[in-house]
Amino acid sequence: MQFNVPHGKKHRGLLTVGAYKNLVHEQHQTKENIKLAQILGWCTEMVNGFLLLYDDIMDGSSTRRGQSCWYKLEDVGMIAINDTIIIENAIYILLRKHFRDKECYASIMELFHEVIYATACGQCMDFLSCQKSVLSFTEEQFKTIAINKSAHYTFYLPIMLAMELAGVKDPLTVCQLKNISNEFGILFQIQNDFLDWYVNPEITGKIGSDIEDNNCSWFAVECLKRANEKQKQIMAECYGKKDPQKVLRVKQLFIALELDKAYTEYEQQAYKRIKTMIEESSDYQPKEAILHILDKSYLRKR
Amino acid sequence: MQFNVPHGKKHRGLLTVGAYKNLVHEQHQTKENIKLAQILGWCTEMVNGFLLLYDDIMDGSSTRRGQSCWYKLEDVGMIAINDTIIIENAIYILLRKHFRDKECYASIMELFHEVIYATACGQCMDFLSCQKSVLSFTEEQFKTIAINKSAHYTFYLPIMLAMELAGVKDPLTVCQLKNISNEFGILFQIQNDFLDWYVNPEITGKIGSDIEDNNCSWFAVECLKRANEKQKQIMAECYGKKDPQKVLRVKQLFIALELDKAYTEYEQQAYKRIKTMIEESSDYQPKEAILHILDKSYLRKR
Repeated sequence: MQFNVPHGKKHRGLLTVGAYKNLVHEQHQTKENIKLAQILGWCTEMVNGFLLLYDDIMDGSSTRRGQSCWYKLEDVGMIAINDTIIIENAIYILLRKHFRDKECYASIMELFHEVIYATACGQCMDFLSCQKSVLSFTEEQFKTIAINKSAHYTFYLPIMLAMELAGVKDPLTVCQLKNISNEFGILFQIQNDFLDWYVNPEITGKIGSDIEDNNCSWFAVECLKRANEKQKQIMAECYGKKDPQKVLRVKQLFIALELDKAYTEYEQQAYKRIKTMIEESSDYQPKEAILHILDKSYLRKR
Repeated sequence: MQFNVPHGKKHRGLLTVGAYKNLVHEQHQTKENIKLAQILGWCTEMVNGFLLLYDDIMDGSSTRRGQSCWYKLEDVGMIAINDTIIIENAIYILLRKHFRDKECYASIMELFHEVIYATACGQCMDFLSCQKSVLSFTEEQFKTIAINKSAHYTFYLPIMLAMELAGVKDPLTVCQLKNISNEFGILFQIQNDFLDWYVNPEITGKIGSDIEDNNCSWFAVECLKRANEKQKQIMAECYGKKDPQKVLRVKQLFIALELDKAYTEYEQQAYKRIKTMIEESSDYQPKEAILHILDKSYLRKR
């Protein structure tokens, strides 16, 4: 827990507490209630922690957050998979301890189940898409993967937890939140995909491998949309190959098709669109907290 | 799901349904109620399925239930860890679908959380004990591991689920069930440990490696209880080593100390003790179903 949970950026945990403070009148922001929101926030960090823990094993990664991956430690190894299950289920031990007598208890458990299930399904779709030809990638597929594997647990979960704790049950607000969260998740994924191939690894802190790994990235999809037959042929020959020469040809094609510009435009428009969605949504929406995280993410470089 | 869940002995699933039928008067054994018990039974099989799935990865096993391990299939590999999370969380998707309006819904979710958490903690203790000197193994340690890593999900979970569905809430019955389940789990583990080193692999269907793996088995503990200083020295030198000569010396020591006889006596006495515990427990206990599984396990050869 100490190794795998607390050392990230804590976006999800802070979003949970921020959204709760947004939703509840100051006089109800008692020490106890804030503590409950903080516990839920840590639970979202535990979700992130256990997902990254087993993701690193699946990907064979070496480092994470500037330290060695947990499973790579000499006295850990493959038992790390079991630690995944321990951290995941410790969430429910915490919930039972602090929320058992609360009205939102069952709904909160359901939320974690649903979101973790969706995330694992998203990971699975992602994995399966990598095994198919790049020419089969579609925008629909890219979006479905982004929404499932990251939007649900990164945006929807923290804000819904805050709503449950605050007792907001308005179906319209929840529906609007889902839409905002999906758009946000797609933008977030496109930003990741951009950092992966375009930005200097010294700045992002990690070496991208989406092209080598045949990932269904936004840039692969956009490239195919704009490519002529000859350029599609280049994609079929060079995408998903380890050969650095082929990777370079893909990057050159992305530049030739001005995908970097397309990205900048998309990011600006998506930012505006999401901002409008937030502003126009119901008064029960924790707008300030969502706008804050949107602003933090906009133009991010890692 | 089709590959990993349905092909076991289905002890846990059948115990769930058997215990439910024991607890509920025939007139309440409607088609719907039996179906609910069967769904819970399949959920216990899903627990077993996902635990074995990741256990095989951690142990680097090749075969399970007479077929290749899931992660060993050519088109699966390490994404199998993600499949673990999918099967685990599919339990809650099923529960939500069929039990959401039932009074026992929250308690049933809690039961799965608790039991899965305890099992993972048991696995972790097991793993950590293997890294220590055999001379440090104690009976207490052996029992704690057996109870956590197998008793909870093999006996306690199926029967408690049946009780929850049947609406049995008597604390005394639950307390007695815990005691029975713990004793049963210990006996079950000792049987496993016996099959591991004593019985011909052609009969058990698997090649044992408890001695090589430095496992905290009942036989290691019993051996140390009876051993003189010289024999303890043999254990320190030979237990937990891959060298077949050293493994043989450990087996010879086990025989010299008559551990095979001690086992037979223990098994007989434990069987009688558990039978008495069942017979003397409250009328709400699903006695017939528990006795049935006890009889099936007694003198088992695999």
